Amino acid sequence: KLIKLSKGNIMNERKTLLVNKDNHLEIGGIDTLSLAKQYGTPLYVMDKTYVKNVCKSYVSALDKSYGYGIISYASKAFCCKDIFRTINAEGLGIDVVSMGELYTALSVGFPSEKIIFHGNNKTCEELVYAIENNVGLIVVDAYSELDDIDKICSQIGKKQDVLIRVNPGVEAHTHHYIQTSKPDSKFGFSIENGDALDFIKRILNYKTLTLRGLHCHIGSQIFEQKSFIIAVEKMVDFYAKVNNELGIEFDILDLGGGFGIYYSNDDKKMSLDSYCAFIEAIANSLKENLQKHNLKKPYLILEPGRSIVGEAGITLYTVGRIKEIKGLKNYLAIDGGMFDNPRFALYQAKYTVKSASNVNGTIDKTYTIAGKCCESGDIIAENVALPKIKEGDVLAVFSTGAYNYSMASNYNRNCIPPVVMVENGKSYVAVKKQSLDDLVRNDV
Amino acid sequence: KLIKLSKGNIMNERKTLLVNKDNHLEIGGIDTLSLAKQYGTPLYVMDKTYVKNVCKSYVSALDKSYGYGIISYASKAFCCKDIFRTINAEGLGIDVVSMGELYTALSVGFPSEKIIFHGNNKTCEELVYAIENNVGLIVVDAYSELDDIDKICSQIGKKQDVLIRVNPGVEAHTHHYIQTSKPDSKFGFSIENGDALDFIKRILNYKTLTLRGLHCHIGSQIFEQKSFIIAVEKMVDFYAKVNNELGIEFDILDLGGGFGIYYSNDDKKMSLDSYCAFIEAIANSLKENLQKHNLKKPYLILEPGRSIVGEAGITLYTVGRIKEIKGLKNYLAIDGGMFDNPRFALYQAKYTVKSASNVNGTIDKTYTIAGKCCESGDIIAENVALPKIKEGDVLAVFSTGAYNYSMASNYNRNCIPPVVMVENGKSYVAVKKQSLDDLVRNDV
Repeated sequence: KLIKLSKGNIMNERKTLLVNKDNHLEIGGIDTLSLAKQYGTPLYVMDKTYVKNVCKSYVSALDKSYGYGIISYASKAFCCKDIFRTINAEGLGIDVVSMGELYTALSVGFPSEKIIFHGNNKTCEELVYAIENNVGLIVVDAYSELDDIDKICSQIGKKQDVLIRVNPGVEAHTHHYIQTSKPDSKFGFSIENGDALDFIKRILNYKTLTLRGLHCHIGSQIFEQKSFIIAVEKMVDFYAKVNNELGIEFDILDLGGGFGIYYSNDDKKMSLDSYCAFIEAIANSLKENLQKHNLKKPYLILEPGRSIVGEAGITLYTVGRIKEIKGLKNYLAIDGGMFDNPRFALYQAKYTVKSASNVNGTIDKTYTIAGKCCESGDIIAENVALPKIKEGDVLAVFSTGAYNYSMASNYNRNCIPPVVMVENGKSYVAVKKQSLDDLVRNDV
Repeated sequence: KLIKLSKGNIMNERKTLLVNKDNHLEIGGIDTLSLAKQYGTPLYVMDKTYVKNVCKSYVSALDKSYGYGIISYASKAFCCKDIFRTINAEGLGIDVVSMGELYTALSVGFPSEKIIFHGNNKTCEELVYAIENNVGLIVVDAYSELDDIDKICSQIGKKQDVLIRVNPGVEAHTHHYIQTSKPDSKFGFSIENGDALDFIKRILNYKTLTLRGLHCHIGSQIFEQKSFIIAVEKMVDFYAKVNNELGIEFDILDLGGGFGIYYSNDDKKMSLDSYCAFIEAIANSLKENLQKHNLKKPYLILEPGRSIVGEAGITLYTVGRIKEIKGLKNYLAIDGGMFDNPRFALYQAKYTVKSASNVNGTIDKTYTIAGKCCESGDIIAENVALPKIKEGDVLAVFSTGAYNYSMASNYNRNCIPPVVMVENGKSYVAVKKQSLDDLVRNDV
């Protein structure tokens, strides 16, 4: 059952951001101004109720529509001990892409059989660590990876379940950096050119590897249901081909993630129901296609990441210097920047920005929100219409729960902000603020 | 006197990268293969002799051509305790842009009077820290910054020397992200539209601030001497105007940095002499222009950063999975990526990449060098022609001494590589490798 949310002047599709009677922004039942005061800025804030509700909805949608599978949180979106505890409590699995992510998961006792290890270039050190710690699945993505896993398994005397990453060649409409299923992608083996089939034949020679099924991931920030459906068709067609030619029955199909979230008016506003509709459509299409080819129902894995945490998070900044260049631009500088959110610099990503103390105030001016780094490209958002703003005001940038903390750096030797979780009017620190000592900790 | 360098098959303009008799890459007199073996990969390696020689040349060029000034290292290019010790020993000053950079400098006893504090949005906390620690100059860049400095100085009973950042409106030919002197830049006050003069008038009202002069910085990766000369002319013209209208004599002129370095064939190969020629040309143009306006010679500050450390550094990676997509692309994955070098992802920056074990080998294939992050945009270089390569080989990426370690992140929870210094055949760790424990250190 979903957790009940407060009523009010709702700012986001999932009702976790409200405007209170003072026209202040409220998240998880707490005034953002008091969060900024208590914890300082810049501050990542994440609404745990939001995260839990998305998890519950996804689990329930998959259960109802398919009844045999798991939601696996793509932890690269936002990885820390606290989120893994929540994800585990909600009954999800996780996927990890590095020793660091795996280490973090294991350190909170995440069940290793529910961990999937991805990556185009897992090092031997990482593979040893993963196999020794009994990860459930390794998604192999290179010929030589098979030899490495075989060698490790032979040495420690065990077998490893694997999926193979295939590239169904679906071009989802998204930023070219995050399109992962184009024919020339670094990920996966192409179905079309025969590489995927060759790779499967190769795997069958290894006694230490148990091939459980297929994995694909077609990209990120996808809003078109059709992209997922095409991927399902291509994957099942390929499964049928493998079944016909090699007589193999797969018992797992991992269709990846990629559900889009709302950052700005360029994106669709997705309700929980519309995400569940994605899951249902995928499940239904999968069932139909399996039936068409007379194939047994495999265990279905879906790997949402961004859509679980992205819109759950906001970043609070304090307004610093305001500089108006007559006839050209109005700059509003914040106490953060590309070190805590590099997505504008990387992808020209758009964000929604509001005044936390005057959310629905009358628009006064349009600003370029600049960070404090010594670099012209250090911008958080452009063309942001805001009510009257002065230094010391708090700004909230929406939808920063994914790929912000996880991409943060110490550029200009700025400290990475803390992450605070809020839930039902209560807050706590999930990740502490980096200290100045942290910055020089490894300096000799 | 410059430090003598070894002879051999020279790979870079400043003779710190050589090819030894085994066709291996050598830096600072050490075979890169033994560095990779000793310290592991990914590994940032920096040749200290290179850094020292650039420092000595710059100091000497400024001394000979102008005789009254200082070279101030722009530490955002590469900031750690070790480099500050070297910079200090070579008699340079530094500029810092955050509390973290300042903290690092003070922690190795860098003389505070030789520290310049820059930034478009210095927070009050940072200003207090800088003033309490007696930084030599604060470069003010906003109206309200004056009030803040005044308040802090009044409270602790001291005066603060300041420069003002002006925007001379020079458009240097460089990536638009690193062009900092366009009319609509977030940095500085425009000379052209009168903002700079207004700002100076304002400063004069503050008894706690001593206006010592002007600062400008026209951009990065500049190879055209003319850009610097135009900036000198505009700055002196403006100085003359201020002198005429307000009767002020400045005793400091800080002309910033921006000298380009060689990354790839798109860039010029700059010898130490050609950099010194820049400094001489700036000095000569400054003297001429001062004479023209009959102005007293101010203390000249130049702020190179990238050109001191950039080409001194290389990154060593181990080759991981190689994936050849017939007719499309050959991927070669390394054990690093955008977490240790985000410059391709950010600016489509180009790099020179060589096989460390077969530097001048016959070219076999052209590769896209991909990182290990779960992101299609995680590329280090494209169209890299390499001799026969196999897994386990070591690759060297050149010119990574600037804006690599300083921009590194924990994306995908990868650990930031260590920095090793080499000098005359000896090596030592300047920054230790991040540990898995470091990754979860602030996790609650």
